[in-house]
Amino acid sequence: RKQVETPEECIPYLDTQSVSWVDVQGLGNKDILERLGKVFELHPLVLEDVVNMGERPKVEDYEDQLLIIARMVVPKERICGFYSEQVSFVLGKNYLLTVQEEPEHDCLENVRIRIERGKGIIRKQGADYLAYTLLDAIIDGFFPVLELYGDRLEELEEEVIFKPTRQTLQQIYQIRRELLQLRRAIWPQRDAISTLIRDRSELITEDVRIYLRDCYDHTVQVMDMVETYRELSSGLMDVYLSAVSNKMNEIMKLLTVVSSIFIPLTFVAGIYGMNFNTEKSPYNMPELNWYWGYPICLAVMAAIAAGLLFFFWRRGWLTNSSGIKSD
Amino acid sequence: RKQVETPEECIPYLDTQSVSWVDVQGLGNKDILERLGKVFELHPLVLEDVVNMGERPKVEDYEDQLLIIARMVVPKERICGFYSEQVSFVLGKNYLLTVQEEPEHDCLENVRIRIERGKGIIRKQGADYLAYTLLDAIIDGFFPVLELYGDRLEELEEEVIFKPTRQTLQQIYQIRRELLQLRRAIWPQRDAISTLIRDRSELITEDVRIYLRDCYDHTVQVMDMVETYRELSSGLMDVYLSAVSNKMNEIMKLLTVVSSIFIPLTFVAGIYGMNFNTEKSPYNMPELNWYWGYPICLAVMAAIAAGLLFFFWRRGWLTNSSGIKSD
Amino acid sequence: RKQVETPEECIPYLDTQSVSWVDVQGLGNKDILERLGKVFELHPLVLEDVVNMGERPKVEDYEDQLLIIARMVVPKERICGFYSEQVSFVLGKNYLLTVQEEPEHDCLENVRIRIERGKGIIRKQGADYLAYTLLDAIIDGFFPVLELYGDRLEELEEEVIFKPTRQTLQQIYQIRRELLQLRRAIWPQRDAISTLIRDRSELITEDVRIYLRDCYDHTVQVMDMVETYRELSSGLMDVYLSAVSNKMNEIMKLLTVVSSIFIPLTFVAGIYGMNFNTEKSPYNMPELNWYWGYPICLAVMAAIAAGLLFFFWRRGWLTNSSGIKSD
Amino acid sequence: RKQVETPEECIPYLDTQSVSWVDVQGLGNKDILERLGKVFELHPLVLEDVVNMGERPKVEDYEDQLLIIARMVVPKERICGFYSEQVSFVLGKNYLLTVQEEPEHDCLENVRIRIERGKGIIRKQGADYLAYTLLDAIIDGFFPVLELYGDRLEELEEEVIFKPTRQTLQQIYQIRRELLQLRRAIWPQRDAISTLIRDRSELITEDVRIYLRDCYDHTVQVMDMVETYRELSSGLMDVYLSAVSNKMNEIMKLLTVVSSIFIPLTFVAGIYGMNFNTEKSPYNMPELNWYWGYPICLAVMAAIAAGLLFFFWRRGWLTNSSGIKSD
Amino acid sequence: RKQVETPEECIPYLDTQSVSWVDVQGLGNKDILERLGKVFELHPLVLEDVVNMGERPKVEDYEDQLLIIARMVVPKERICGFYSEQVSFVLGKNYLLTVQEEPEHDCLENVRIRIERGKGIIRKQGADYLAYTLLDAIIDGFFPVLELYGDRLEELEEEVIFKPTRQTLQQIYQIRRELLQLRRAIWPQRDAISTLIRDRSELITEDVRIYLRDCYDHTVQVMDMVETYRELSSGLMDVYLSAVSNKMNEIMKLLTVVSSIFIPLTFVAGIYGMNFNTEKSPYNMPELNWYWGYPICLAVMAAIAAGLLFFFWRRGWLTNSSGIKSD
Repeated sequence: RKQVETPEECIPYLDTQSVSWVDVQGLGNKDILERLGKVFELHPLVLEDVVNMGERPKVEDYEDQLLIIARMVVPKERICGFYSEQVSFVLGKNYLLTVQEEPEHDCLENVRIRIERGKGIIRKQGADYLAYTLLDAIIDGFFPVLELYGDRLEELEEEVIFKPTRQTLQQIYQIRRELLQLRRAIWPQRDAISTLIRDRSELITEDVRIYLRDCYDHTVQVMDMVETYRELSSGLMDVYLSAVSNKMNEIMKLLTVVSSIFIPLTFVAGIYGMNFNTEKSPYNMPELNWYWGYPICLAVMAAIAAGLLFFFWRRGWLTNSSGIKSD
Repeated sequence: RKQVETPEECIPYLDTQSVSWVDVQGLGNKDILERLGKVFELHPLVLEDVVNMGERPKVEDYEDQLLIIARMVVPKERICGFYSEQVSFVLGKNYLLTVQEEPEHDCLENVRIRIERGKGIIRKQGADYLAYTLLDAIIDGFFPVLELYGDRLEELEEEVIFKPTRQTLQQIYQIRRELLQLRRAIWPQRDAISTLIRDRSELITEDVRIYLRDCYDHTVQVMDMVETYRELSSGLMDVYLSAVSNKMNEIMKLLTVVSSIFIPLTFVAGIYGMNFNTEKSPYNMPELNWYWGYPICLAVMAAIAAGLLFFFWRRGWLTNSSGIKSD
Repeated sequence: RKQVETPEECIPYLDTQSVSWVDVQGLGNKDILERLGKVFELHPLVLEDVVNMGERPKVEDYEDQLLIIARMVVPKERICGFYSEQVSFVLGKNYLLTVQEEPEHDCLENVRIRIERGKGIIRKQGADYLAYTLLDAIIDGFFPVLELYGDRLEELEEEVIFKPTRQTLQQIYQIRRELLQLRRAIWPQRDAISTLIRDRSELITEDVRIYLRDCYDHTVQVMDMVETYRELSSGLMDVYLSAVSNKMNEIMKLLTVVSSIFIPLTFVAGIYGMNFNTEKSPYNMPELNWYWGYPICLAVMAAIAAGLLFFFWRRGWLTNSSGIKSD
Repeated sequence: RKQVETPEECIPYLDTQSVSWVDVQGLGNKDILERLGKVFELHPLVLEDVVNMGERPKVEDYEDQLLIIARMVVPKERICGFYSEQVSFVLGKNYLLTVQEEPEHDCLENVRIRIERGKGIIRKQGADYLAYTLLDAIIDGFFPVLELYGDRLEELEEEVIFKPTRQTLQQIYQIRRELLQLRRAIWPQRDAISTLIRDRSELITEDVRIYLRDCYDHTVQVMDMVETYRELSSGLMDVYLSAVSNKMNEIMKLLTVVSSIFIPLTFVAGIYGMNFNTEKSPYNMPELNWYWGYPICLAVMAAIAAGLLFFFWRRGWLTNSSGIKSD
Repeated sequence: RKQVETPEECIPYLDTQSVSWVDVQGLGNKDILERLGKVFELHPLVLEDVVNMGERPKVEDYEDQLLIIARMVVPKERICGFYSEQVSFVLGKNYLLTVQEEPEHDCLENVRIRIERGKGIIRKQGADYLAYTLLDAIIDGFFPVLELYGDRLEELEEEVIFKPTRQTLQQIYQIRRELLQLRRAIWPQRDAISTLIRDRSELITEDVRIYLRDCYDHTVQVMDMVETYRELSSGLMDVYLSAVSNKMNEIMKLLTVVSSIFIPLTFVAGIYGMNFNTEKSPYNMPELNWYWGYPICLAVMAAIAAGLLFFFWRRGWLTNSSGIKSD
């Protein structure tokens, strides 16, 4: 591992028999990239794709060079979400040029360490095996990100059903949006790796192709998980709507129970609050002058309330229909 | 059937003409697996796939060996749900190595018993027929699990339409989640079996291929059922939302009927509760001093109530619109 | 047409030049089926498929025999729904063996009658033409079932928009479930017939293949109709939800109109029901002692009510927004 | 253009070198069709397809004849919707037989007129070019129908968002149903034309094939539009539901504002309507005897009302949330 | 760059060895187009496609000419939305004829400027490279339009969750409609470019094909973005519905809290507003004559209110469930 200052310093390494990995981090200086392009004899389209950071993952065959554009995701540390970064590979006979923009968020560090320690079979193999190792590390980097989403969806499920708030809604939508991003990152990656396996480029040996098949399987697994999570999050939106409706039912039930009990009672009280002149006629509110008038009136009210409560209790409205604390 | 302690004890069996089935249960000891890998001359990727329990079902051809990764489901006993476990097959010329993690939940016991009793055609056939028998047992193991879901969906349907609660919602969502799992287990299995039939590996005879075609048909049938249940459960979510809205309608109707009847009546009572001084003018609430004032007032109230009740009855609001106990 | 008691009685017919149709109805006796298997030299898998009544429709080629599994549907008589039954065909050189479980619900009776009457071209043709005729009758048997669903969906549409009840919901869901069943029956049938046409088995002549192409067209037409009805029934669920919400709007409007008019009025009545002592101060409810106090108060109330009614009328809340009897 | 009475009169035309177009309108008489079948030597399946008016569009090759089944749509004049009619073509060496049921609703009249006037290149070309011209007229006949739906969807959009009624719901559902019909008509048409282009039948010259490619492009365009309109109408259903919910929000807001303001006020009025005996104790409603009692009470009420109005105004409930007349 | 008046003036340029780009802007005069057709020897179908402005993007091979129909989008300046315009290319041996309708909204100006300045490699290359440059400019013109939608969707998200109004609904629906238009523009474009790459027409050199591959990648990227945005906007509709329901919950909660607190209190006030004659019996409302009657009554009311407030506070109804200003 050696830090070089100018692209031209790479030239002597390209001629040696051993495999060279040129790992460009950061794309700040346009001039340097152009000189790099000259050193590695890159096609203008290759250079354009490498510089343009929003490319779709793909594999392109330029006879003596293979351009592989991949997309790497790294989970954000404290908050949810992930960094997404493009990694471009230019695979030559005995060199591998990789370009990435921000060197901080990176899931390739592991591979670098393994090479430095001279451990594993990476050092004994060719540039194609090195490319496979890096691709594999990139694909495997999707799993921790996906597991985060799996955990969050599980947490959200409980929240959605029993405590749906606007924040929940926002979170579900955000997860959907981020899963769409992941999907846009992994789908073309699968096509790219499948192209690497199928198109029999001479730059990739038969042995490495078997390893790439394994890498392809993992890509499909990532896609599977993304699709499953997308379906779950989309189902969660339906659940949210249902849960909100459910909660409204609870609210309405309470309102209805309270209103239905007290409105008739208030009416009865209103009746005996009328000022009909009891002295003008024996038919004008004789109840007001009865000896037991007030107690009877209260008893009637209590009976009405009890009757309504019984009616609501039989309908099951008095217990929370979910049997759990509703908010 | 013989219990061996170390992988090396298998070696003499590999050389014999007869078919050997080495059934590894539990993956605890890594060292043993590596020795096993040496005894059976497994490719490092094969060993990795066998150990890694989250692999997708697949078939891989390593010239003199076929790696088949399958996923087995076993219904949980009392509660709903299923155990899902990976079973790896390494099919050689005259041996079959199967590896699974937990030997408790298992749908292969039947096959073991049939072999021990020396019954059936399994003993007379080669290792490929044995692999087919096991694969067939694994696929057939999906049916009892699916039937459970069919039953649960039927039960839920009634509950959703007539008694929608939050638990119902949770159950529908859980079923959807578990069906997605089943789907992720069965789809690649179909591809794997289809690969076995199509790729004319020498390890599988033409006769067994015909049997595998039958196995493939069953896989497609499982997939069909999973998809049907998924559509049903997804439709159930819509039904749930509609049923909750429906229930809210019932609640609102009751509130509206009660409010609409008693609020006007209370207003009438309120009128005659006013304290306008009847002595100051003949126009100030003369009703209060009428001989029939109170009875007429009650009669007017009764008429209003009867009129509103008739109005609601004609609109059909007094009978439950479903004709059934609503909660 | 001859009723035979034992499978062995069929043997002489198999040798004759003419075409024999052996029509087994009911699967009660397992022994008989095994003897049948021996007489017709059936592969063990064929026998298994014939006996197992839940198979998917398919075509399998056993060199001198073609196994065709088809699924027949017959509309239930009074209630909605259909019987679904498996019919297995074993097509040989000059015989056709058909097996079905319950002979009652059957759409093949027509064909039997045509053969008995010696009419039509069926008798002059080979076993393959007979098989085509039966398959065609089975496919055509889907149309009356589908028409029933078309009629029911049309009826439901009106009901859903103007009188949505829980029964409606249940019916929509049931139709969806049954259409999923139909779909599971017809999709593999299409694949099976397409296989019959494509795979150039010697048991089927070129002439019959042209007829099968027609049969295939009808299968596609059935599929088309099933898919259309599924989309319609799924759209109906959305309509249901919207209609229920709409109905709730009507209910809420009534409640709001009634409450908004009477609550302010009741408040005014409440004001003049207060007992402030008019004798203590000229500012304490002087209205009570006015000459025109009560009439003015009533006039104010009437004005408030009229104002609110005008407000609601201009918003269009007083007329049913649908212009039709809402329940 | 000549009106013939019996099918046999066509015979002399079939032998001539020139191209004959036999245009059968109406299918009333079965006998005539059978004689027609004999004159044109039609395969029994062709005759069956021609008579059976519910066939799917398709192309079938009968060596010296091509059967083309197409479906024509004509917009209804005043109301929305379209007539759908089957047109069958039998294309021979130098004749074209077309059969349609109802001659009234027709988009082929244009072609007939062009031929009669002897204008255009139709007269100089073969029967295949004539068939192309008719097919092209049929496909182009879809566009005016589709434009009607485009217009209606645009109109409905406004209505759905600002004035959702039950009629709107019914119209959206009807449009969906009719678009499904259009889709069922156009999809197989595309396959049929694609078959005409791909299968190199001798009855169609290379020149006409280029024209058919253009016709195919138009079919795809029709399909595109149908799919777009279907998505729009399905989105409109979601919009409808949201708009209805929105409207309910408006209603509920009004109810809540009115109730929340007047219920507390009525309570205050109720307080001072109580009959506690002010003479028994100085603590019994001394307010009633205050000099400023009533004015203070009214002021308190006004303050409460103002406070609540301010609260609602700040929440934005007093202005229509849409800023537009809500109903 | 030269402005010509009549199509015939182009003739001398067609014979020269250099590459000519004839750029027709505006389609007003039909006669000119026909003369143009004669000069360039266009097939009548080509001329028809060029004139008819609603064609789907496509590529058609007329041996010595390639017809490419593309669709260009240009963002509208102040309001949201885009202009969509058809650009037709006729690619010959050494000329390129492009026809577009309105020259104002145009994303090809850049290319024109580059050519005029004689800069870049465009001038040194053939007509096919020129066609590629224009196609590339057209495809790249989709990105600014899509970015606008990305921004709008992000803005809408916040609005939908926290301030859903009818305008929001309308905007979501409009975005969906416009994305459907974009989709209809870009899908066939992809097929067209893929056809250009695959069909090995002699008019396109191998070098340009490599560039077209890059152009194809960009088209796929546009499609990806359109699909992602469509899913997001469709998810936004669900979010909208949920948010509206959520808001209704808030409204209902307020109504329920206010009603549930004041209705019981009003009832208590109503009780003591009754006019039972306390002189007739000691049981008739003795409370009215108690020394502490009124204070006790008020205390009871306060206790009831406090109890209910506590109940609602514990349920979390008093704080906005979202913790944010709800409207």
